[in-house]
Amino acid sequence: MAQRTEISTLGEFGLIDRLTAGFTPHNASTLRGPGDDCAVLSYPDSRVLVTTDMLMEGVHFDLVYTPLKHLGYKAAMVNLSDVFAMNGRPRQLLVSIAVGRRTCIEDLDELYAGMRLACDKYGVDIVGGDTTSSVTGLALSITCIGEAPADEVVGRDGAKDTDLICVSGNLGAAYMGLRIMEREKMVFESQRGGSETLAQPDFAGKEYLIERLLKPEARGDIISALHEAGIRPTAMIDISDGLSSELMHICRRSNVGCRLYEEHIPLDYQTAVAAEEFNLNVTTCALNGGEDYELLFTVPLTDHERVSRLDDVRIVGHITRPELGSILVTRDGQEFALKAQGWNPLKED
Amino acid sequence: MAQRTEISTLGEFGLIDRLTAGFTPHNASTLRGPGDDCAVLSYPDSRVLVTTDMLMEGVHFDLVYTPLKHLGYKAAMVNLSDVFAMNGRPRQLLVSIAVGRRTCIEDLDELYAGMRLACDKYGVDIVGGDTTSSVTGLALSITCIGEAPADEVVGRDGAKDTDLICVSGNLGAAYMGLRIMEREKMVFESQRGGSETLAQPDFAGKEYLIERLLKPEARGDIISALHEAGIRPTAMIDISDGLSSELMHICRRSNVGCRLYEEHIPLDYQTAVAAEEFNLNVTTCALNGGEDYELLFTVPLTDHERVSRLDDVRIVGHITRPELGSILVTRDGQEFALKAQGWNPLKED
Repeated sequence: MAQRTEISTLGEFGLIDRLTAGFTPHNASTLRGPGDDCAVLSYPDSRVLVTTDMLMEGVHFDLVYTPLKHLGYKAAMVNLSDVFAMNGRPRQLLVSIAVGRRTCIEDLDELYAGMRLACDKYGVDIVGGDTTSSVTGLALSITCIGEAPADEVVGRDGAKDTDLICVSGNLGAAYMGLRIMEREKMVFESQRGGSETLAQPDFAGKEYLIERLLKPEARGDIISALHEAGIRPTAMIDISDGLSSELMHICRRSNVGCRLYEEHIPLDYQTAVAAEEFNLNVTTCALNGGEDYELLFTVPLTDHERVSRLDDVRIVGHITRPELGSILVTRDGQEFALKAQGWNPLKED
Repeated sequence: MAQRTEISTLGEFGLIDRLTAGFTPHNASTLRGPGDDCAVLSYPDSRVLVTTDMLMEGVHFDLVYTPLKHLGYKAAMVNLSDVFAMNGRPRQLLVSIAVGRRTCIEDLDELYAGMRLACDKYGVDIVGGDTTSSVTGLALSITCIGEAPADEVVGRDGAKDTDLICVSGNLGAAYMGLRIMEREKMVFESQRGGSETLAQPDFAGKEYLIERLLKPEARGDIISALHEAGIRPTAMIDISDGLSSELMHICRRSNVGCRLYEEHIPLDYQTAVAAEEFNLNVTTCALNGGEDYELLFTVPLTDHERVSRLDDVRIVGHITRPELGSILVTRDGQEFALKAQGWNPLKED
């Protein structure tokens, strides 16, 4: 039986001391970490990039099948991903947590352990935050601060006619992982109170999809590879809401159109198998399934050779003049207007 | 009847467009605001100060008596206050909001109007954030970014033996405002379903206390006054959890003791009257009542004359060697060890 210590035994400041114990900054830009009204940073030679994300229990995660350590890891990675998507390097994280009465100190230790793991991977310092209570579920709000040299910041608004559209990794896997987890949860819940021995969920052959959902990796490696290859994307965004929605963000902000080729959309074998099992079109899953946290970027046509040599990057289409619209070209050569049907937490069911 | 438009009619991006419409930066440090993966800032010549706060419905605010515009104003001010407490100037704000189904677009407009009002007062830019949904109540998470010249940052850790302890404004008023609001809420709820005409709450003579609770003001004016008077505090903190708790933070971080004189603690007349009405010791309210957002700071003894000339600043005691402890000297000359009994959202009731 896991130990369970009530948070009230430590109090707010005791808890903060415990969670921030042993703080030693990795970055020269981190002058002061937790323990004052503000953290103090120094960025004399770079642009400062800031981004924030809020994760709510019951909306963004389900604690039934999300271990707290994974949740912490993912919550941090999602924010690092936003900094990478500007062609920057993440440096500091601020972490706010609101916990309900069900949460004990060991739970917070796990959550923090996951965040630290993600931060250590990219040398990011947790410099502050807020720890408070919630009358209901767990709420997480993370702010990430990063940097990029002034002339290397890449927004969503720089894509130009004839640019190549590129995607890292593969798409739709996290969404299939979510469908599998939701299905197993239903099976589990329908068995509750029934037979004494519960059937254990069988994830054999689907480990990759589950991992993509529960432990996404921000693509800092792609940013490094682009840098080493001397490629500066003209526009970039991370794919949190599905390829279709993100590509349309770039088109709208850059005032361009696009042609996306279905046959080039990168898919993993397990994603295709699972889509078939669920009777779903795998392209639709890649276009509209969220949470892959891959990078979508555009590069000038002249970078064609250089970008083709990159590992784990695929050219999926090209940018056009705005009046040509945002077009998906299917395997059989039909053309459809892209729609942004990405996951929307503000949509009524 | 107020208009009520469901958030689903706009969708996430429509909503963001509406809330961030007409964004024009006030600060040279704000290079890019909302609309990309990150906001882009530039701080070549200053230290960057970052702070974050999370406010949860049912814990930090009660929508029964908190108008959303006031909530937005307060949520912003509380974060600006943290930047002032480092002797800095707030420049940018990131705003994350999670809303339940009860919340409509007009509610968010109000919340944003309040935040804008607070930001406009100090020329702060709202550069980004996150807007999502909650299965239950409203959750707000705000991150503020500010700056200060490298040699002007003031932490909690610089107080020295013989320094004077100073407080701006007056204390305990917000706590008395809270008690009044909680009382009126109880009266209101006990009448519900009873007589047809509800007694209207009577706040006559208590307007100041209510305002201190619902519309706190971060003390940027004091920071300016200190600057103009050529006074550099040795340590500073804003009073969010009560004078006693905050003074003990300074003592702990600076490794010093203190003597605080009850007779010098600044109180407003309305606070004293209300404390009597509630049969509370007004000094206890000032020591342990939270949310005043006044500044507590220490200055060298040599600044005695200069600090005495400042408007709305009172000297309440002095710093001592650590072995002398943290002492409250009462009006009748008795001495008590200070206790940090400030409001603690993580304490069991």
